[in-house]
Amino acid sequence: MKINMSHGSGGKASAELMEAVFAKHFSNSILDRMEDAAVLTVNGRIAFSTDSFVVTPIFFNGGDIGKLAVCGTVNDLLVMGAIPLYLTAGFILEEGLEIDELEKIVISMKKAADEAGIRIVAGDTKVVEGSGGLYINTSGIGQIPEGRDISASNCRDGDALILSGNLGDHHACILSARMKIENNIASDCAPLNDIMDALFAADVRIRAMRDVTRGGLGTILNELADTSGCAIEIEETALPVSDEVSGFSNILGLDPMYMANEGKVLVVVAGEDAEKALAAIRATVNGGGAALIGRAAGGRGVSMLTAIGGRRTVDVLYGEGLPRIC
Amino acid sequence: MKINMSHGSGGKASAELMEAVFAKHFSNSILDRMEDAAVLTVNGRIAFSTDSFVVTPIFFNGGDIGKLAVCGTVNDLLVMGAIPLYLTAGFILEEGLEIDELEKIVISMKKAADEAGIRIVAGDTKVVEGSGGLYINTSGIGQIPEGRDISASNCRDGDALILSGNLGDHHACILSARMKIENNIASDCAPLNDIMDALFAADVRIRAMRDVTRGGLGTILNELADTSGCAIEIEETALPVSDEVSGFSNILGLDPMYMANEGKVLVVVAGEDAEKALAAIRATVNGGGAALIGRAAGGRGVSMLTAIGGRRTVDVLYGEGLPRIC
Repeated sequence: MKINMSHGSGGKASAELMEAVFAKHFSNSILDRMEDAAVLTVNGRIAFSTDSFVVTPIFFNGGDIGKLAVCGTVNDLLVMGAIPLYLTAGFILEEGLEIDELEKIVISMKKAADEAGIRIVAGDTKVVEGSGGLYINTSGIGQIPEGRDISASNCRDGDALILSGNLGDHHACILSARMKIENNIASDCAPLNDIMDALFAADVRIRAMRDVTRGGLGTILNELADTSGCAIEIEETALPVSDEVSGFSNILGLDPMYMANEGKVLVVVAGEDAEKALAAIRATVNGGGAALIGRAAGGRGVSMLTAIGGRRTVDVLYGEGLPRIC
Repeated sequence: MKINMSHGSGGKASAELMEAVFAKHFSNSILDRMEDAAVLTVNGRIAFSTDSFVVTPIFFNGGDIGKLAVCGTVNDLLVMGAIPLYLTAGFILEEGLEIDELEKIVISMKKAADEAGIRIVAGDTKVVEGSGGLYINTSGIGQIPEGRDISASNCRDGDALILSGNLGDHHACILSARMKIENNIASDCAPLNDIMDALFAADVRIRAMRDVTRGGLGTILNELADTSGCAIEIEETALPVSDEVSGFSNILGLDPMYMANEGKVLVVVAGEDAEKALAAIRATVNGGGAALIGRAAGGRGVSMLTAIGGRRTVDVLYGEGLPRIC
């Protein structure tokens, strides 16, 4: 059975879809109240974030648009030092979407939310013309424990930059699917709670964090340099990339520096804590491939010591990137 | 200038769009930090709600998709008794959208947010193929003051039902625009803070509230009856509809009972407070046309005393409704 315009009416068909798909899997005491908003109790500092997801194809090796939508917002909360608590999910469904596919996506969201320890508390569904795709917006709230102050503006000369694993996996996976290239590259899409738990348990002095998504590492490093007023110096040979993604991007002329991930984080820590942080991240499931990639220094901008010993400027992503990567 | 795929890259073009359109109008100390999430302080009970908006046309008499996106989520918070505080805005832009039009929409969002007393604290932009339209998701947080307990489950036998004004205005406006019928019907799209302030200032015992949107009054009354376990009895002659919308819907064979509003609220109050509540709502800008339309009673379901003296069951909206009404 497929989605049709009546599923967006707000009437009988909408209610039936709600019952058959959303309530069935997202059911909890808050959603079940069927009010216009969830009522929650929160005390103190919170992080509040939103992200819309338009990735195509909607199912890919290592995940789907639903898992991505949960992980993306969860990771945005985590990098602010927050403990993810509550999530909303807004669906824009295109006419012709198979309801079975929608249900798979909803199940995948529930699984990712459980893994990340976040509760889906409110939702909304609209239907538009189209060709059987969908968009998902997630907005999330997380609690920031007392004493945590994580912000790009905290970076300073001498801080160490750690990347939690291989660059470009999500990008290479989506592009492979679009080009119908068969390989084993899977999206790295994951909630990064385990890395955060390990860092905080090890009492690492974290200055700033950013998850590496569209725009890639190059863009994030520049945002970090701009916001912090520090220079960033990285080493090309230190950047982790899998052999398979490296081969794939070489053939296509892509630079992993600007390729998207969905389960990697750049962590800036006090210089003296670099080894401790690296060990903590490497001991996690999602951070096994972590590497020390560079340092913050006095000055401005982002530069890279190249493999052949030169130094070049790393700029933000120019041009189009890969459309609908997330 | 038009939106193209590079504006969704997460790189240079995305940053330029952010600067030229979003930061320019939404600018505030929280957004300016350019982190992955806004950091806020909230204490106690909150309402948390999300809604996506896909209305077409994106500009209409009385508003636009941006104003609608702010008012829709603000009203969802207000009907839970919450004071709107923080809003996120997620944009999905179709290639070909005029950047001038986007800016008009952003300005309109800022104006509506200011009117509603809510701060836009975080955002996101994606670009998809299409024909120059856009979708907006808004998610909002509001604070529920101590002692407020507003929920459909609180309704009881003898409560009074007050509707804050004329039915069907938004629906008739959008349909007129689609059919290119010239008339003066304007959308009632508005944030309903003034009505809430008046009700709380008058110490009205409010049981439940619902804003009247897609699905119309008929659908909301049924949700209220289902959730509360009460019967709802309304009077056809008491339902407020403007002459113009009445004429328009008669010609097209539409029933205002199932037509959408975007600035009307159904308020259920203790029976003895009916007159006090009605007077308070009528004294506001958005509630000038308020009417007492019925009562909650023992039993189940929704029934209406018709204009000719019969009694009939009011069901939820069956079938399609008007696609992309909100």
